[in-house]
Amino acid sequence: MSERMILHEYAASGNCYKVRLTAALLGLPLERRQYDIMAGETRTPKFLASVNSNGRIPVLQVDERFIPESNAACFYLADGSSLVPDDRFERADMLRWMFWEQYNHEPNIATLRFWHGWVGEPNWTEAQLLLAPAKRESGKAALRLMDEHLLARDYFAGERLSLADIALYAYTHVAEDGGFALAAYPRVQAWLERVPAHPGFITLAD
Amino acid sequence: MSERMILHEYAASGNCYKVRLTAALLGLPLERRQYDIMAGETRTPKFLASVNSNGRIPVLQVDERFIPESNAACFYLADGSSLVPDDRFERADMLRWMFWEQYNHEPNIATLRFWHGWVGEPNWTEAQLLLAPAKRESGKAALRLMDEHLLARDYFAGERLSLADIALYAYTHVAEDGGFALAAYPRVQAWLERVPAHPGFITLAD
Repeated sequence: MSERMILHEYAASGNCYKVRLTAALLGLPLERRQYDIMAGETRTPKFLASVNSNGRIPVLQVDERFIPESNAACFYLADGSSLVPDDRFERADMLRWMFWEQYNHEPNIATLRFWHGWVGEPNWTEAQLLLAPAKRESGKAALRLMDEHLLARDYFAGERLSLADIALYAYTHVAEDGGFALAAYPRVQAWLERVPAHPGFITLAD
Repeated sequence: MSERMILHEYAASGNCYKVRLTAALLGLPLERRQYDIMAGETRTPKFLASVNSNGRIPVLQVDERFIPESNAACFYLADGSSLVPDDRFERADMLRWMFWEQYNHEPNIATLRFWHGWVGEPNWTEAQLLLAPAKRESGKAALRLMDEHLLARDYFAGERLSLADIALYAYTHVAEDGGFALAAYPRVQAWLERVPAHPGFITLAD
């Protein structure tokens, strides 16, 4: 690709890490622009008008065009590469895990990480206090489902690393920041060691 | 495709309708199996073990394999067809709207439709009473964002009907069931008339 690619991001966000990790595994250069989400920098009129009207990061900029939604940005980068299965069923199965991640995993595991690590429990609103136990249970159910899925396989879709693994790795590997005990999920733990073994891997802090 | 395809579904669900609509627009035959979600038929040990360990519908069965997650099932059906753009950027842009639908649209607009039409406001729990106003505001913000996006275009991704439109049509066209007034979104209304004009279109009730 000869496009200039810029990631509009907040570095500690797992959703932003997904895009960086995909680019790193594929050896694609990516410029980075930081926004302080705690200071509202992704809700300014300028950001809303020129980067993402939804006021969220990450957004992958490709020349003068923009791709919001972490998993769509990863798909753009990896489309046609070994991170997207050639087989039609496996490709849909990869997307199945990516949609599942955004609906069943991220709203529980990433949200509790944010509430614990950024908001701080003493500052939780009434709604957060009421919702936290349900998010805890749903997050555990998500980790359990992942653990069961890995019973007979090494990766989530197909037989090798795909975007499904990258999407799930981002917030699973830091799930303990949100109070989830990963020791209860031994196959998830083994998979968490499998992903970083791939050439080009970078950490969340890189 | 020569596979036997069976949709495991609950007919009134917009997520299930997406899969039926995709198949209909492509002229693909689809068998249908009904589950009463209100009676817990998707949480039985048999369903969890043989159809979807996540206990949700829709699930697209392709011969002996299963694809949960509505938007992944649609992708399987439409992969390689005119409903998935050939252009790499447009393909990622289509997925962007599909991920956005599952994260910002469905949890607000579909959930309020379910809470109003299936649960019934007098039966709402404390959590539902607390969350409903935020879901109302987030749902309106989603419809507003759609309306703005359609200012300069007829379809969500690329220049013609794609899975992005199908994913968004499913719950937008019945948003009033959840108490959203579509009259406030004239470009969404015009787009809601554009989608059914396509050959093969079926309604939610078909």
